[in-house]
Amino acid sequence: MRVLIVYAHPEPASFNGAMKDLAVETLTAAGHEVTVSDLYAQNFNPVTGAHDFLHRADTGHLDIGTEQANAAPTAGFAPDVQAEIDKLMAAEFLLLQFPFWWYSVPAMLKGWIDRVFAYGVAYDFGKTWDRGVFSGRRAMLAFTTSAPPTSSFPDGRNGDLERTLWPLHAGVLALCGYEVLQPYVAHAVRWVDQARRDTILAEYRERLLHIASDQPLFFQKLDDYSPDGRLKPGIEPRTPGQHRGPRLHLD
Amino acid sequence: MRVLIVYAHPEPASFNGAMKDLAVETLTAAGHEVTVSDLYAQNFNPVTGAHDFLHRADTGHLDIGTEQANAAPTAGFAPDVQAEIDKLMAAEFLLLQFPFWWYSVPAMLKGWIDRVFAYGVAYDFGKTWDRGVFSGRRAMLAFTTSAPPTSSFPDGRNGDLERTLWPLHAGVLALCGYEVLQPYVAHAVRWVDQARRDTILAEYRERLLHIASDQPLFFQKLDDYSPDGRLKPGIEPRTPGQHRGPRLHLD
Repeated sequence: MRVLIVYAHPEPASFNGAMKDLAVETLTAAGHEVTVSDLYAQNFNPVTGAHDFLHRADTGHLDIGTEQANAAPTAGFAPDVQAEIDKLMAAEFLLLQFPFWWYSVPAMLKGWIDRVFAYGVAYDFGKTWDRGVFSGRRAMLAFTTSAPPTSSFPDGRNGDLERTLWPLHAGVLALCGYEVLQPYVAHAVRWVDQARRDTILAEYRERLLHIASDQPLFFQKLDDYSPDGRLKPGIEPRTPGQHRGPRLHLD
Repeated sequence: MRVLIVYAHPEPASFNGAMKDLAVETLTAAGHEVTVSDLYAQNFNPVTGAHDFLHRADTGHLDIGTEQANAAPTAGFAPDVQAEIDKLMAAEFLLLQFPFWWYSVPAMLKGWIDRVFAYGVAYDFGKTWDRGVFSGRRAMLAFTTSAPPTSSFPDGRNGDLERTLWPLHAGVLALCGYEVLQPYVAHAVRWVDQARRDTILAEYRERLLHIASDQPLFFQKLDDYSPDGRLKPGIEPRTPGQHRGPRLHLD
């Protein structure tokens, strides 16, 4: 497969850097064609703004969705955005490698998503979820944490990791049509010794050898929903983000 | 109260801009002392890196946590970070105003969190959750979406909004000790007419008048957990991020 690794860590000698290097080596050796977007090395600008566009649909009022939709069919993206779009559109497998900061991706990677997953490019009217732009392609998160796995168990202090990952798994990847694989999580890397570090990397290598065949996570299909965007009465929610119980926080 | 509004939108005439302006006006009129961090106007750099630090604990290997912990007691943050830390530490109420992009904050705001909520500043060993740095202070999200409310109902296509907000509500705000208020969500602002827009802003104004007295969201206390970071057997999870049921996505 053509693989795009989007990697966001400021220190090349970090554990994330080691995971990225291992992925390049392992996937290349397995016959995949690997491209890396090393966002820190590229000095990628994560800020969405007027500079994303070569020309504007509306020069008076900046609406990002409007300008993305205008830029998509008119080759109107700034070169740094277009270069990443080209890599993204070519990739059959998208691998995001990052440190888990504040239950999410670093701003550097969030900005890559904000700017590159543009309206009219990565999603469009009627082109989402199982009818998404990237249907048939696969994606996976690989990240490090600073806490032990139990902290993100369902009853853990940090909350169930599969719920914490909902915005990334569902809101970014599945929404755009990707088949999302189980993430590879390197827990508490700050605290592990060399032997444990080697074990983690060996396990990760094993995972990488099965990315073409691993079973993807389940998400509901668009046909499961009524026109109001809610699951049809007969459909039981089977994802970490959806349920039919009472709410605990919001009215 | 001393209020800090952190606002991240590239267009001053946006709905987010209107909400920010309304908050400044309403809260000031109500007697609060309001400061705004207008991240786009400030040209804030959301990228965490070596440039965050005036001096380094380890000039060879960049570990952000180590350098933040080193900078905190030694006035070692770069001026742009320190200026935001000063505003944050002075604020009794933190209001984050942003467009909901990819089920989360824009990179601009994520980077403000990454850099400003530094280790040794916004949290520390033993200073988290109900023993957090900001205990007794309050925080609230105010954001716009492009979808109708039903899409983020518990059985909605986007998933239950209170689960989607877990990383921000729990992972950022509650983890650092804030009492987190219900968010103010302006739904589908792209599609509303002027009358509905006026109604939304009027409702938001009402919310702003009660920020000192509104009941905060519930989060578990540190005493609810065993040493392994999991809820004690007798404690029933009562947050959107925690449960004792089976997992649906992760092994």
